Amino acid sequence: LDAALRIFEAGGYDAATIEAIAARAGVAKTTIYRWWPSRAALLVELLLELAARAAPEPAGPVPLKAIRTELRRVTKAAETLSGRVLLSLLSRSQADPLVRDALLHGLFNPRRKVTAQIIRRAQQEGTIRKDIPPLMAVDIVYGPLFYRRFVRQEAVSGGFADQILRHVMLGLAPRPPARRRTAGAKRVRRAKKRGKAGR
Amino acid sequence: LDAALRIFEAGGYDAATIEAIAARAGVAKTTIYRWWPSRAALLVELLLELAARAAPEPAGPVPLKAIRTELRRVTKAAETLSGRVLLSLLSRSQADPLVRDALLHGLFNPRRKVTAQIIRRAQQEGTIRKDIPPLMAVDIVYGPLFYRRFVRQEAVSGGFADQILRHVMLGLAPRPPARRRTAGAKRVRRAKKRGKAGR
Repeated sequence: LDAALRIFEAGGYDAATIEAIAARAGVAKTTIYRWWPSRAALLVELLLELAARAAPEPAGPVPLKAIRTELRRVTKAAETLSGRVLLSLLSRSQADPLVRDALLHGLFNPRRKVTAQIIRRAQQEGTIRKDIPPLMAVDIVYGPLFYRRFVRQEAVSGGFADQILRHVMLGLAPRPPARRRTAGAKRVRRAKKRGKAGR
Repeated sequence: LDAALRIFEAGGYDAATIEAIAARAGVAKTTIYRWWPSRAALLVELLLELAARAAPEPAGPVPLKAIRTELRRVTKAAETLSGRVLLSLLSRSQADPLVRDALLHGLFNPRRKVTAQIIRRAQQEGTIRKDIPPLMAVDIVYGPLFYRRFVRQEAVSGGFADQILRHVMLGLAPRPPARRRTAGAKRVRRAKKRGKAGR
């Protein structure tokens, strides 16, 4: 993996052949093939290692803070080597279903599940609306970043991540009880009562 | 373009070589090269034609309705031939900066500008908050769709588009003035006055 990393850094996906990696690592090609069935499988594992280092799974007692930290880390990682490896593998994944499956089951699905659990905690404590499926909330938080960086391939910054989160969170936040005022004062009083009881 | 379309439909990007397209169209390769410098340029133009047919530019007197119609059409188009051509070209764009530029300047940027204008109209009429940059609102509306369909390569449906829009719009909608109540009744009265004056 270390040999693959250095070759990828210098020459990108095209340079990172099994031959080149074996030569760099000082082993036979068959040794590489004993561990990874293909170059793509090797590079997906490299990506998972890089991603785990650059953006460890979100954690911490405050769900919204954990989400913010994760989004910032993923945004930062997207502009570094992990981002370039992911972009390479995404472009391979269209022609190669094995790469697509490795990315989906190795990277996207597990990470989205972890983030969805944090969102579920936020829903339980009342900082995210309960009527949104957690995985859909994950897509709403991460969609703009991936659309910009991995579809349009434009640069992303920490400022971009913060702005997206600020605007998106206004939609994910529970609706303020005072909003119901238009529907009659009685309902507002009831809603306020519920709000207090919930604190 | 018609020849390219039929070959792409049958065999995908790899089959749609300049040779195959020229043979199908019954012209010399040089004739093709007189119009398009490369296979990618030809396929980008094919995509723009398909996209314009499948999802014409949003229009209509009601901005939020125009946005909903466009999102639905783009979602539907993403599951058809245009979606497959776009996925192919995106996967080429990582290795070929010319493809990336053609997609960015031919497809993404012009379309995002048109949608941003609709969002500006919604801001003027007061159905979308004024404190969000219109292009950022475009990314918030379209990000989840592109993340799901063109990064993770999972299927998208009209129901997905509607759900995303419903949740995202709660964040893009203007904050109800009643919300400011918590900060004191005086500010609320002032905010309400401003709200009326703005209508």
